[in-house]
Amino acid sequence: MITADIISIGDELLIGQVVNTNAAWMAAFLNRYGINARQMHTISDSKEEIVSAVSTSLKNSDIVLATGGLGPTKDDITKHVLADYFGCKGWFTHQPSLENLQVMLAKGGVAIGEQNRKQADLPDGCIPILNRLGTAPGMWFEQSGKVLVAMPGVPYEMKGIMEDIMPMLQQHFSLDSIVHKTMLTYGIPESMLAERIANWEDQLPKYLKLAYLPSPETGVRLRLSAYGGNHEQLEKEIEDLFRKLEPILGSSIYGWGEESLESAIGKLLKDRNQSVSTAESCTGGKIASLITRIAGSSAYYKGSIVAYDNSVKQQMLGVKEERLAKYGAVSQQVVEEMAKGVKEALQTDYAIATSGIAGPDGGTAEKPVGTVWIAIATPTKIICRKQQLTNGREHIITRSSATALNMLRLAILEEL
Amino acid sequence: MITADIISIGDELLIGQVVNTNAAWMAAFLNRYGINARQMHTISDSKEEIVSAVSTSLKNSDIVLATGGLGPTKDDITKHVLADYFGCKGWFTHQPSLENLQVMLAKGGVAIGEQNRKQADLPDGCIPILNRLGTAPGMWFEQSGKVLVAMPGVPYEMKGIMEDIMPMLQQHFSLDSIVHKTMLTYGIPESMLAERIANWEDQLPKYLKLAYLPSPETGVRLRLSAYGGNHEQLEKEIEDLFRKLEPILGSSIYGWGEESLESAIGKLLKDRNQSVSTAESCTGGKIASLITRIAGSSAYYKGSIVAYDNSVKQQMLGVKEERLAKYGAVSQQVVEEMAKGVKEALQTDYAIATSGIAGPDGGTAEKPVGTVWIAIATPTKIICRKQQLTNGREHIITRSSATALNMLRLAILEEL
Repeated sequence: MITADIISIGDELLIGQVVNTNAAWMAAFLNRYGINARQMHTISDSKEEIVSAVSTSLKNSDIVLATGGLGPTKDDITKHVLADYFGCKGWFTHQPSLENLQVMLAKGGVAIGEQNRKQADLPDGCIPILNRLGTAPGMWFEQSGKVLVAMPGVPYEMKGIMEDIMPMLQQHFSLDSIVHKTMLTYGIPESMLAERIANWEDQLPKYLKLAYLPSPETGVRLRLSAYGGNHEQLEKEIEDLFRKLEPILGSSIYGWGEESLESAIGKLLKDRNQSVSTAESCTGGKIASLITRIAGSSAYYKGSIVAYDNSVKQQMLGVKEERLAKYGAVSQQVVEEMAKGVKEALQTDYAIATSGIAGPDGGTAEKPVGTVWIAIATPTKIICRKQQLTNGREHIITRSSATALNMLRLAILEEL
Repeated sequence: MITADIISIGDELLIGQVVNTNAAWMAAFLNRYGINARQMHTISDSKEEIVSAVSTSLKNSDIVLATGGLGPTKDDITKHVLADYFGCKGWFTHQPSLENLQVMLAKGGVAIGEQNRKQADLPDGCIPILNRLGTAPGMWFEQSGKVLVAMPGVPYEMKGIMEDIMPMLQQHFSLDSIVHKTMLTYGIPESMLAERIANWEDQLPKYLKLAYLPSPETGVRLRLSAYGGNHEQLEKEIEDLFRKLEPILGSSIYGWGEESLESAIGKLLKDRNQSVSTAESCTGGKIASLITRIAGSSAYYKGSIVAYDNSVKQQMLGVKEERLAKYGAVSQQVVEEMAKGVKEALQTDYAIATSGIAGPDGGTAEKPVGTVWIAIATPTKIICRKQQLTNGREHIITRSSATALNMLRLAILEEL
């Protein structure tokens, strides 16, 4: 199997100022083409570390993908270190990159400066990779049949270059097949899920590998993988095995692979030609922003009233002042009125409403931080649940947003 | 200087299904205590890889922090591999972890099962670290004065354990000081910034290191670092140096360190006892969700009308039907009415409105995908700008949300 090491270069990663989203994207992308990310390494902008990581990775993997340190500024040293490492004797100006640079800068109304112009200079012996979406080109080096590609760390520039080099990698290597399938579940904690499917898991054939992937946003995903072998046959076998879980897990299963709760809901609503709106207090627009992440969501999503202030709850959602006074904003009574209110105001078939205390302040003995009420208005009724969440503001917002989306999904399926 | 290697264990990371946010958080946390994250490694749930990574990292760094593979399920092998690696001869049940496990499970209404109970069993020779926020305890191993701590991969559980072990690490090692300061700028592209401050950069003393950290969310951050030396003196020197950039960069500087555009706005509004509301079309709740990420934002943020559908723009924001028909939803005329409309409806001092085409569909020759109009309503006027963005739906939403927040900031400062 062809393997790749991913090397992310940048002090900003090692002091934790930037989360390395590149490595995950690259790994998922490679995987789709049957290239196995063996390891990922994050190292600093230092000559010794770059040289040591590159030589180790070129020893252990067929492909080494390095990002970062190719910009126009003085802390960007990757290009020169690699030129030395591969023993390049001189430099050349890559004309397409220089022209691209001029066009890109002109778009931003910027004249080309000396520092920028140097980005088009590349070491002899590398194959230049035009950076369609940015100014610093990528570089393809070869050593004893192995390949190292260096590219910028800016995520969308890296993605463009990865797409462009994939046909070259496919040609250079003969690629093994990997079969993966991931089943998505929400609402059953990992350990309970493991106990429920223990018998099924024990009967899995040895050449299949099962992984549990829990997260607050997605619930627990179950992944079955097989390496090599007959692609079609394995796919069918994995599918048949997952099918056996359907009677055990029922409507906790919300999708497959890259799906999300918000995309699953989108499909359900589109199929039914129905619509949804949201009224958010403690989730503060998070649910709206999840739903609208999906391209085409305007077909079923009308909008949200983010009613952070109680005056907005009254004025825009018709929540009565005496209810707010009597029960408080974080209550079944108020969240139900919010759901009803937004459903009527925006004229949708369904509505989600949330009201809770995300913290760190605002909790009381009766309603501690993490108390979140969620209501779903359907064409015929209102369903309401209280969540008692912990682990900080961000987690409370994330988790209650996901739970609200899952409740809507179950309500549409009439399983709530 | 005391250094740490971070090892993230999990196949889910290597196929890119999960982004490694843990490593960044750990690095930033260590940094605050003067521990330097030397390298980060992501490896698979395999015995050989865990052993090889652990032994290499224990050779190169003083501390090794490993996350992942401690759960109750069968793909979680880290505990047994480490027990072997450190030559542990037997196992013991850690009573506090067992009790914690029972309490945690009881909260979720779950009885303890055999698989769960095993989580409290730990190898002889390790110091158990209670996991306050989850079920799998951490483990502290020592080898020739060096320390390895293994902990679960669930982010909030890992964070709790990191906080708990820091006093132990402080006691075990004598820690060098690191001085960092980061200046935050928005609105000047990286290469232009580099040219503007080139003279300043050339005059930096050799023992200070400058890094450019660009991102769509935060603009370009500039970080100066110094290792060792006199902490207070270096801090003052770095501050004085940054101060020299103020006349050059002016109001492009929006903050320092961990600040964000949304927290900077929060401070400005709180200081002035003023408020803001938002009316979002293409950003779909993203701006609301950024503003409400800040604890205490309810003091100045009233809410948002996410007007995804044109009917909501008319009904809730008072945008006139003939304007929508004549100019289209993505136009200066409509976005200005949206800003005015939400400012009046929610009775705030300021308002942000966005309307654009996030794509991938919906673009025309005249208004291609990435066309975004942003309006800021202030107590006295309306300011409107058109953005022409590229690089995909997510980037367009992210970038226009950040630009809208920055426009609000400049408007409050009367610099727009």
